[in-house]
Amino acid sequence: MKKVEIGHGSGGRLTKELIENLFLKHFDFPELKSLQDSTYLPGHRKIAITTDSYVVRPRFFPGGNIGKLAISGTVNDLTVSGAVPKFISAGFILEEGLPIEELESIVSSMAETAKEAGVSIVAGDTKVVEKGSCDGVYINTTGVGYLERELSPEHAKPGDVIIVTGYVGDHGIAISIAREGFEVETGVESDCAPLSSLLVPLFNVEGLRWMRDPTRGGIATVLIEFSEASNLGVRLYQDKIPVREQVQFVCEMLGYDPLYLANEGKAVIVVSEEHAEEVLKILHSHPLGKNASVIGEVTEGEGVTLVTSVGGERRLELLEEDPLPRIC
Amino acid sequence: MKKVEIGHGSGGRLTKELIENLFLKHFDFPELKSLQDSTYLPGHRKIAITTDSYVVRPRFFPGGNIGKLAISGTVNDLTVSGAVPKFISAGFILEEGLPIEELESIVSSMAETAKEAGVSIVAGDTKVVEKGSCDGVYINTTGVGYLERELSPEHAKPGDVIIVTGYVGDHGIAISIAREGFEVETGVESDCAPLSSLLVPLFNVEGLRWMRDPTRGGIATVLIEFSEASNLGVRLYQDKIPVREQVQFVCEMLGYDPLYLANEGKAVIVVSEEHAEEVLKILHSHPLGKNASVIGEVTEGEGVTLVTSVGGERRLELLEEDPLPRIC
Repeated sequence: MKKVEIGHGSGGRLTKELIENLFLKHFDFPELKSLQDSTYLPGHRKIAITTDSYVVRPRFFPGGNIGKLAISGTVNDLTVSGAVPKFISAGFILEEGLPIEELESIVSSMAETAKEAGVSIVAGDTKVVEKGSCDGVYINTTGVGYLERELSPEHAKPGDVIIVTGYVGDHGIAISIAREGFEVETGVESDCAPLSSLLVPLFNVEGLRWMRDPTRGGIATVLIEFSEASNLGVRLYQDKIPVREQVQFVCEMLGYDPLYLANEGKAVIVVSEEHAEEVLKILHSHPLGKNASVIGEVTEGEGVTLVTSVGGERRLELLEEDPLPRIC
Repeated sequence: MKKVEIGHGSGGRLTKELIENLFLKHFDFPELKSLQDSTYLPGHRKIAITTDSYVVRPRFFPGGNIGKLAISGTVNDLTVSGAVPKFISAGFILEEGLPIEELESIVSSMAETAKEAGVSIVAGDTKVVEKGSCDGVYINTTGVGYLERELSPEHAKPGDVIIVTGYVGDHGIAISIAREGFEVETGVESDCAPLSSLLVPLFNVEGLRWMRDPTRGGIATVLIEFSEASNLGVRLYQDKIPVREQVQFVCEMLGYDPLYLANEGKAVIVVSEEHAEEVLKILHSHPLGKNASVIGEVTEGEGVTLVTSVGGERRLELLEEDPLPRIC
């Protein structure tokens, strides 16, 4: 590790190395150790906090833009941590020469998405750098929520059910197509959306163990992390994982695996077998969860095993390289 | 307003326009309206939140680096708002090719400064962009603190005393010299420091009205903002404002006004005349406040008037142009 590489931003193995060998070496604060999406803070009322910087390229894409993404992503990080999102701060780094019209369109998407998610944008900051010193606009959003339900990979047990709330890989493919300017008309849009209204009702389900939004690195990466943190195995069934036909088609064309593609409006949920039906019922009653499916189960052992369509078995590993940098 | 200009990041008039005419038009959340450094959030225990992105150039300078600055600046924003800083999130945008050694030096400064300030870094995020898509490293820090003392420009009254905690302009001049690679050996270092241990003891002083850290735009800009928000005037005495000889010298050489230069380890304080001595005593007992001085007073009327060394009077106005972009 001598210089920062694009792969350090992948969310995969190199990111993990950078975080563990550099950031955590110095940031020796107990609150930071869990490496979940949000950190719980002590206080009279328990609050959760999460931060993300957004550098997505291009900044406008089918289904959204960097502003909608910056609110959705942070809302989702809080929600999957068992917190009701309440407050968001927004820090902008703007490139000299950015058309104000574009900035306004981004800011207006943020306001709309915040309202949809029920969060208030309560603090802001704007910095401007010279032309060539950033790519249009980068946005940091930091979210604060009230913790309602303590969720943890350590709550999981063998036999628990794994659910995904809808089609996987849409965001990755939408960005990829927008970026490369393909002529193909796939109709695939990013799934970018705030999930608080879908997921907060699950906080009352007794057997709910853990949730995560599978962004960078896709459902494969978050389940590998779940497996490590829970000391349990995961078994996924390829045939049960919802992938749009067009997404599968583009993946085959470009050599992507939809299980590793980023999603920005999906959650992976681990729930007791007993309460899986209750979770599915709640999800199916919401437009953002109508395609929710059981995709696998928690097992004894370790690692994530994919049972393929032809009945073979494949172990899923963290990606070394980032197939799509700057996806969020 | 068609395109983003460097001046939109100045903290002066253009920044104000961008915030009022664009961000606040869309971000119509009551918590955001006060435009103070931190926003107070309701809850069982009142918390304050603040966010800042740091893009300082160069990222290492005499007296500090972007990491020390990113912690100090956010700690100071919370403290001057009457909150005890507790938690900080850190979002990194890294340029491909950044030497890991530099990153580590920045991260280790952040850890050290956080410890000095008594805050925990509790959430983090890392993004990497391609070479040429950012300038080495940009850092967002968002801070959460427990509100201990409600401070507001509206608490001020004519006759109140204005105090600055030490020499002004050091950070601006240190950056300017580091950037331009002057041969002059001025010995001026950035004052970059977390002020929580200096300022939190003031929360118990009865007549304390308002505090602010004079970063971008210097003491002139924060006092103009104070004057607008309080509907009162400010009278400053040039001879009473502590400016180092070397800073004055470089200012005269380069055409800067030290009153508009950024500080990263100073506070401007408004306190009742009755309690000014108590504040000065507390400040003088701390290494970061030993040069604290009374520099003026609050008056009826409006705007900021500077009484010059030769006895003339000059009205201070918000700067249109940024003499030193990317100062923080």
